[in-house]
Amino acid sequence: MSRQSATAFAPASIGNVAVGFDVLGHSFPAIGDRVRATRTERPGVTISAITGVTKELPLTAENNTAGRAVLGLLETTQPGFGVELTIEKGIPLGSGLGGSAASAVAAVVATNALLPQPLTSQQLLSFAMQGEAVASGAVHVDNIAPSLFGGLVLTVGIERPNVRQIPVPPAIRCVLVHPHMELPTREARQILSRSVHLSTVIWQTANLAGFLTGCFTDDLALIRESLQDVIIEPQRQSLIPGFEAVKRGALEHGALGCSISGAGPTVFAWCETDDAERVRDAMVAGFTAQGLACDTWICAIDAVGARVVD
Amino acid sequence: MSRQSATAFAPASIGNVAVGFDVLGHSFPAIGDRVRATRTERPGVTISAITGVTKELPLTAENNTAGRAVLGLLETTQPGFGVELTIEKGIPLGSGLGGSAASAVAAVVATNALLPQPLTSQQLLSFAMQGEAVASGAVHVDNIAPSLFGGLVLTVGIERPNVRQIPVPPAIRCVLVHPHMELPTREARQILSRSVHLSTVIWQTANLAGFLTGCFTDDLALIRESLQDVIIEPQRQSLIPGFEAVKRGALEHGALGCSISGAGPTVFAWCETDDAERVRDAMVAGFTAQGLACDTWICAIDAVGARVVD
Repeated sequence: MSRQSATAFAPASIGNVAVGFDVLGHSFPAIGDRVRATRTERPGVTISAITGVTKELPLTAENNTAGRAVLGLLETTQPGFGVELTIEKGIPLGSGLGGSAASAVAAVVATNALLPQPLTSQQLLSFAMQGEAVASGAVHVDNIAPSLFGGLVLTVGIERPNVRQIPVPPAIRCVLVHPHMELPTREARQILSRSVHLSTVIWQTANLAGFLTGCFTDDLALIRESLQDVIIEPQRQSLIPGFEAVKRGALEHGALGCSISGAGPTVFAWCETDDAERVRDAMVAGFTAQGLACDTWICAIDAVGARVVD
Repeated sequence: MSRQSATAFAPASIGNVAVGFDVLGHSFPAIGDRVRATRTERPGVTISAITGVTKELPLTAENNTAGRAVLGLLETTQPGFGVELTIEKGIPLGSGLGGSAASAVAAVVATNALLPQPLTSQQLLSFAMQGEAVASGAVHVDNIAPSLFGGLVLTVGIERPNVRQIPVPPAIRCVLVHPHMELPTREARQILSRSVHLSTVIWQTANLAGFLTGCFTDDLALIRESLQDVIIEPQRQSLIPGFEAVKRGALEHGALGCSISGAGPTVFAWCETDDAERVRDAMVAGFTAQGLACDTWICAIDAVGARVVD
């Protein structure tokens, strides 16, 4: 007999990872969203509660990322029941940490556990993408895929995305510093120039190729040389007060690289374990100088994605 | 006692490899240039003969890629003797096969064998780059590094280039089809737009990341999906009569990808061993329809670079 309810956890994620705008992302399992899905006699999707660090989200299923994702899943699988969702947000709104993606992912993973014939993660991907489109105004997968699959994830293609997990050197820790301000993704996208100089394209592709090669071959020196965004970060950094000081502090204290998480304003750094706390403190100091309070987290980038936890 | 003369072979190379403009290249060991270096009492560099498929190259050392490269090497190492070079060109001029790079590489590798304290390949790289700058009008390393080190090679940075060999799946063969026409590198570079649309940048970076991931994980399906140049090839293909038919023929006969070798007009395809001859024949047919005769070669991409052969 199928279960009546299930709770899933989906991790936050860092989109772009500096060198892979719209194609790379990695999970950040220290925080995430939880969604509980319960079978209902009534068809369709209802959202009974949104709790946690963000509450001001739509309760109408059609307009909610988690609701929209599950509506699509039920329309396709036709299980003969409806679903009630309760959403517990662990990811701040407008933080650049893939909060809308995580809610959509947790919702489809929880609902999937109720189905008589559960789908694969690859199949769930497209439903979660539909959900996230409600929040971001466009279909993106660079937060969805890392939250769903876990680890550092490359996604190639939009229609039928190919997802591949890239190994992360085990010595790497990720430091996240979230300043207490919101930066809507739409605004952060609108600021971007539609054209890129060819010489900048070459520089960025060298960085991307060096970063991936460094990950595959456990070459921290090459990652350090390559983990630099020369296309997007220079355009967006003015939206984040203190960004230059935050980044400089991270690099001066040993970080291999430091850039904007997704559309910001959260800033991430990759570093070795022993440097992580110093890097974090230096980054916080950069925001404090601007009068911004921060939340911070440090964790390894394990390749564990969204999962049923109850 | 040091040797009086040495002959080195340096393979041809395929710059860009479709997805890595100015950062990727791979050697093509079926053809290459040979340079013999002989010690002379008189200091400096003399070029006594240029033979083989291309003879119309400058004999003045300063203006010759091989000569210039060896001049730099001797100026730095000060071995107390001069060098006489004889150059045997196996690589056609203006073919997009890295002929000027191969001559420079073979010349420094041969000369290096005469030095009492030979330099490392990494040290030789910059001298070969100086040499190639004479021919191409700019410092590029995406032919030099593959010819020197062998295999599929990523180069990051220009001042102190970082070189990394990327594994190529052993099932891969490279088909080269060289139509009998010349396409000067300068012309092929001048045609390029200085700006790239952001959406195209994203597409190309996804292809580059997919291609590298496919190489590191022996995933031919991912290489097939990714080995596509959406930035440079669309701009340059009009310079190569019949290119569209050549490429279509290659893909229809099983090639994983097909694009322009370096600045062209040579076209390359990656395919599996069993498909290689069919792919070659289809590519040749595309050029034949334009009245262009061709040379063709098929080989594996082994990671053996330039070397002393005599």
